[in-house]
Amino acid sequence: MAAASKWKNTALLVIDMQKDFILPDGLMRVDGGQAIVPNVIKAVEVARRRGILVIWVVREHDPLGRDVELFRQHLYSVGKAGPTSRGSVGAELVDGLVIKEEDYKVVKMRFSAFFATHLNSFLKTAGIDSLVVVGVQTPNCIRQTVFDAVALDYKYVTVIVDATASATPEIHLANIFDMKNVGVATPTLEEWCESDD
Amino acid sequence: MAAASKWKNTALLVIDMQKDFILPDGLMRVDGGQAIVPNVIKAVEVARRRGILVIWVVREHDPLGRDVELFRQHLYSVGKAGPTSRGSVGAELVDGLVIKEEDYKVVKMRFSAFFATHLNSFLKTAGIDSLVVVGVQTPNCIRQTVFDAVALDYKYVTVIVDATASATPEIHLANIFDMKNVGVATPTLEEWCESDD
Repeated sequence: MAAASKWKNTALLVIDMQKDFILPDGLMRVDGGQAIVPNVIKAVEVARRRGILVIWVVREHDPLGRDVELFRQHLYSVGKAGPTSRGSVGAELVDGLVIKEEDYKVVKMRFSAFFATHLNSFLKTAGIDSLVVVGVQTPNCIRQTVFDAVALDYKYVTVIVDATASATPEIHLANIFDMKNVGVATPTLEEWCESDD
Repeated sequence: MAAASKWKNTALLVIDMQKDFILPDGLMRVDGGQAIVPNVIKAVEVARRRGILVIWVVREHDPLGRDVELFRQHLYSVGKAGPTSRGSVGAELVDGLVIKEEDYKVVKMRFSAFFATHLNSFLKTAGIDSLVVVGVQTPNCIRQTVFDAVALDYKYVTVIVDATASATPEIHLANIFDMKNVGVATPTLEEWCESDD
């Protein structure tokens, strides 16, 4: 089977790889984030080579914080750009990750990429039935997106275990464990790359 | 009652007042659109004076058309910017309408402003229970948004009858009639302005 047809129903979701989540001085830094950047970059490269649709899932919040979860609205106020405010440097993707014309971008306001977004319609229309997930952070945006994907009957849901991260390895692994238990595949990047053979 | 408190639970939804829908050479021109521009501008001014939250609802589609309704995906292709493509001139608001910092903008992909968007969460969190709707076009985006607002239990839903428009007066009035029948108020702009006394 040609690579293009093998992967034509698969999309790669790259979640929240934005400066405010990843960089050491990011306003909402995820401690394990920076270590996975090379693997996320490689996952995107491999996806492109395979003809996998790349979807960038990001947060771009109201500078006044009116569309942020209630528990962190206090981080936003007039004259003080909160995390991943629309148009801010912190909302940009980290260096090494670039959106190409054939990719697609989804802005989300909550943990799950499916919550109050057009993502599910978009994927269904594009014929996507399988998802591969990378990014941050495992207990929140990764896990909520993955559980929604399972709930929405995506046939194959894959989380690349060393291209996702959270504040600590313990939290990361506990959540990977839970996801495995609902049928999610959790290969390393190397294993996922080899699965193309 | 002070004006500010009287209107603090009301939002004005300004729908699809973008060049591609309104201008004579717009890629998806609504024939009645240009005639209502002055009234939409005035409705926004009155809303601001009253302290009403102004919400701009717009379409900003994938240049490749992958997030457009199926029946009009043929209008989009590589090298051919379809209607209200993200970043295109046609996606801009018509002259005279400007988004201010305290406003909010919602990008929608379908007729209803509530369909797969964060709008309902945002309005509920902002304490909004009443909506006033202006823009184009009556049978599609206006009506679907209004029927969803009714379904979502917004207490007062108002459509300003001469700040909304469709291809013909007949279509416009037939839809206004149906909305009136589900409890929607349909004042003229003048009547709505007077209701502030």
